[in-house]
Amino acid sequence: AERATISAWDRGLYFGDGVYDVVQSYDGKLWAFEAHFERFKRSMSEIGIKNVDINDIKRQILGGFDEAKIPNALLYFHITRGAEPRAHLPSPLPEPQFLLFVKPAPDNHKLVSEGVTAITYPDIRWKRCDIKSLNLLPNVMAADEARNRGYDYAVFVDNDVIIEGISSSFFAVEDGKIVSRPLDTHVLPGITRRVIIGISRRLGIEFIEKEVPLSCAYKADELFLSGTGYEIRGIVNLDGKKIGTGKPGEITQKIIEYFIDYTRSGKSFDALV
Amino acid sequence: AERATISAWDRGLYFGDGVYDVVQSYDGKLWAFEAHFERFKRSMSEIGIKNVDINDIKRQILGGFDEAKIPNALLYFHITRGAEPRAHLPSPLPEPQFLLFVKPAPDNHKLVSEGVTAITYPDIRWKRCDIKSLNLLPNVMAADEARNRGYDYAVFVDNDVIIEGISSSFFAVEDGKIVSRPLDTHVLPGITRRVIIGISRRLGIEFIEKEVPLSCAYKADELFLSGTGYEIRGIVNLDGKKIGTGKPGEITQKIIEYFIDYTRSGKSFDALV
Repeated sequence: AERATISAWDRGLYFGDGVYDVVQSYDGKLWAFEAHFERFKRSMSEIGIKNVDINDIKRQILGGFDEAKIPNALLYFHITRGAEPRAHLPSPLPEPQFLLFVKPAPDNHKLVSEGVTAITYPDIRWKRCDIKSLNLLPNVMAADEARNRGYDYAVFVDNDVIIEGISSSFFAVEDGKIVSRPLDTHVLPGITRRVIIGISRRLGIEFIEKEVPLSCAYKADELFLSGTGYEIRGIVNLDGKKIGTGKPGEITQKIIEYFIDYTRSGKSFDALV
Repeated sequence: AERATISAWDRGLYFGDGVYDVVQSYDGKLWAFEAHFERFKRSMSEIGIKNVDINDIKRQILGGFDEAKIPNALLYFHITRGAEPRAHLPSPLPEPQFLLFVKPAPDNHKLVSEGVTAITYPDIRWKRCDIKSLNLLPNVMAADEARNRGYDYAVFVDNDVIIEGISSSFFAVEDGKIVSRPLDTHVLPGITRRVIIGISRRLGIEFIEKEVPLSCAYKADELFLSGTGYEIRGIVNLDGKKIGTGKPGEITQKIIEYFIDYTRSGKSFDALV
């Protein structure tokens, strides 16, 4: 894999002209595959990638996972519009380029229990972050800035309101309720966000969709993030301000425990969400 | 070149984590190379690409141009942050990946004289379009939409104000004066835009920096675009509305003639701007 190459004319390289998704497996079983695959198809359709044999793509992903023989794996896959001489306007029907890699999932247990420190970063991204595209430079810049300032992670803020993490959904806990921004074209419809809604329902914790102003985030009882490879992590410090007790909060921990038990039990995503 | 490959781990592919620039040569001589190279260095610095031997990069560009032996060439070059296993957060000091290609410049004379038809497209791009980055998916989507609707090109509009073309600066002619949006973080500081300012000064045409509302653009006497490979082209139809006489206007043509004469004469960019 280290020596793998792609065409130097891939439109993914010149324009970020493609979309991707990431799936996790637990104990040899893909978790929420159909939900991820549906989102992947929607991303493709939103940017107008055509000429794709979608069943073949699915076979390649499932076959790649089987071949890799990694029980707890992360599967990354993307599709770009084509590989051809560089021009903003693609040729009428370019041949989409598919890429898949499968690697062992990191063991997040320690990070999940310790939580992360985060900075806020201005949300300078494009206006269609509901599409999981290869245009991720602002996310990289935010991650780099966080490290330069000695933090683990970054969350995007626009107009003094928290939007989402650089690779995760964002949640606050206020008065025993979980609060997260409503979905629209500015945030990714997170699959793990749906899982958290399901878990909160089972635990009898109210889930409310509303914006979280930065000033409220600083004062929240708890803050946490969710993502496929990222799983769920408490934010223990935001912009240098201690959140709650400075450790992942009680509700965050309950959600994490339920999530870890459930995903490692072979139970189905569909039954939860 | 058709069979050229790059590492499948190039961060340009996964994140658009890189910056580029394009230079044109006329009759064996690079045009405005230093201005492009300065912009390229600024783009690199703005996204935090370090660890670059900038003199070596310059040697590669100039050497590649010499070797290609194409008198009227377009040189495209980009640099990405590195090639390494995919993660938003780059490793501390990845090795930047440089790519250059040199190809014959298209003969724009016919397009320049005929002008182009264009649609407007919502400016859904990120908020740092002053950086010439590889995050260009919205530009591709706009170009694709233009073709789907039977037009040549697209210009971005935000809040009913024209921002710039998908790969060019935008100008209107009103009452014999050339009007263009002031530079800020939402538009690329065009090198050819600087040339146009220089030409308009020499021709005694007033150049004004101010926003062009869409409603004014529809009623403008003339509209035109400028870019390095694109050179200068009149917009003869915008969103189905005929602009001026439906042919590139008088001032547009004067600017184009001066530009073509000047760039093909071996005269210097610096003397003009």
